Amino acid sequence: MIYHRVALIGLGLIASSMAHAMRRAGAAGEISGHARSAETRAVAREIGLCDRVCDSAAEAAEGADLVVLCTPVGVMGAVAAEIAPALKPGATLSDVGSVKRSVIRAVAPHVPPGVHFVPAHPLAGTEYSGPRAGFATLFDNRWCILVPEGADRAATDRLAAFWRALGANVDEMDADHHDRVLAVVSHTPHLIAYTMVGVAEHLEIVTESEVIKYSASGFRDFTRIAASDPVMWRDVFLSNRDATLDILGRFTEELFVLQRAIRMGDGALLHDYFTRTRAIRRGIIEAGQDTPVPDFGRSAVGQAGE
Amino acid sequence: MIYHRVALIGLGLIASSMAHAMRRAGAAGEISGHARSAETRAVAREIGLCDRVCDSAAEAAEGADLVVLCTPVGVMGAVAAEIAPALKPGATLSDVGSVKRSVIRAVAPHVPPGVHFVPAHPLAGTEYSGPRAGFATLFDNRWCILVPEGADRAATDRLAAFWRALGANVDEMDADHHDRVLAVVSHTPHLIAYTMVGVAEHLEIVTESEVIKYSASGFRDFTRIAASDPVMWRDVFLSNRDATLDILGRFTEELFVLQRAIRMGDGALLHDYFTRTRAIRRGIIEAGQDTPVPDFGRSAVGQAGE
Repeated sequence: MIYHRVALIGLGLIASSMAHAMRRAGAAGEISGHARSAETRAVAREIGLCDRVCDSAAEAAEGADLVVLCTPVGVMGAVAAEIAPALKPGATLSDVGSVKRSVIRAVAPHVPPGVHFVPAHPLAGTEYSGPRAGFATLFDNRWCILVPEGADRAATDRLAAFWRALGANVDEMDADHHDRVLAVVSHTPHLIAYTMVGVAEHLEIVTESEVIKYSASGFRDFTRIAASDPVMWRDVFLSNRDATLDILGRFTEELFVLQRAIRMGDGALLHDYFTRTRAIRRGIIEAGQDTPVPDFGRSAVGQAGE
Repeated sequence: MIYHRVALIGLGLIASSMAHAMRRAGAAGEISGHARSAETRAVAREIGLCDRVCDSAAEAAEGADLVVLCTPVGVMGAVAAEIAPALKPGATLSDVGSVKRSVIRAVAPHVPPGVHFVPAHPLAGTEYSGPRAGFATLFDNRWCILVPEGADRAATDRLAAFWRALGANVDEMDADHHDRVLAVVSHTPHLIAYTMVGVAEHLEIVTESEVIKYSASGFRDFTRIAASDPVMWRDVFLSNRDATLDILGRFTEELFVLQRAIRMGDGALLHDYFTRTRAIRRGIIEAGQDTPVPDFGRSAVGQAGE
């Protein structure tokens, strides 16, 4: 057991996966939880997600050794203000937000003396949301980035041990670097996927049913990430504005280079470009961050189900 | 048996998958094959991919009831010119190119009288290429689009029966519409994925090893399609230039709308946009064109391997 009592504020995909993974690892003595929506709390009670589902965030946080903010990042400041009086001295306050600088800016002023604030970001997800979407293996072999920014070393190490118990590898980074890395590997790819799916949605020359029918030829791979939770992603883009706009600007520049090569018939440029990008794919498979199975394992899954 | 003798010109992922799927279905009496590269022919012989691997395309095509061009689309005209004298009267000539209007323009002038030219495009692929990459289930439940453009009805129906035997669903379309649909569902998404991976490759603020390490947060889903065969994709963009540039223009417009919303802090616009794109994902899963398993079945594959 790493913490006697853990409180999850917000009970969506990440929090529910944490609950399952904590149980699998025996990482927590008791799990309390709160969600703003009465419906979510009812579902969490029905499926026995936590030991206690509380009607207020402060009640869930009271007496906990670790409190994890699992709400969309846009409301974390308000939630921190609400639970601050209930936090016990020596407790660790953390979060799972996809953006770190703005979360620190919003949450840190509310953290009472004697409480250790150690922001964190587990890099894992699916297109599903809500308390029923969680599963114990979500964090296995994924990365969790801690952004202690001067927090107590013992509290940081304990949180690192907790995430390792949940299956993740742990790294540390400063908040600004985290936000830039995530703008590249996550935020900009999501915006681009949303855009491509949006383009397909309102074309007059190609029907939506054609797009769906023939999606396996590439488009499909964009739709999973473009199906992620809208509130979460709205908050991510508004909270990591500068880094996302910077990477989007670079993306547009590159796109124009390739677009011009197509227009001018510059096959050599296209061939060189497409050859270089293969190397990154190989690196990802070697690093264990994807399966080498053709079609992302979709065929293997199909066969297993036969 | 649907054809006594089938010839595959080009022995990459699609041709080798066709060979495996033909064997599974008993769709062909004999399979002959040719690849331009001596190394590819040697591999094909070593793994017994075809009944006969020939040193020239004309030799492979001679006497075949169905000849399928499986080369990059940019060389199909030259290959057609080379094999034309060897095609037997009554034979069907087809292809598997991702673009149809330019293939028809390049190939049709070489088709001898009495030979039925029925262009086709199976919508399936992985990021792997070459004669060892093929597998029998690649076309199962995928779509194969025939573009007969006035070809003999019996020859077209026979080719449709052949593709159904290989596991595919079959549709017919005219060439221009095919090229527009594919620009939306395949060509533009591929170019965007290549661009995003290219952006990540030469940033100074984020290292390539960080991109690889943290790729599971979205970026990874772009890298499979950005690892597809560079020659094939160079030819696709050069051959479907106008439709791809049209969709790219619409993509950039949409991207600028979202980019501006981020800059101006317009959360309502972002939320609405991200909510609409979820519906298309649901349609794709309902249409059986993707698995609903979280993470594209990657976790299921991981568990199966444990």
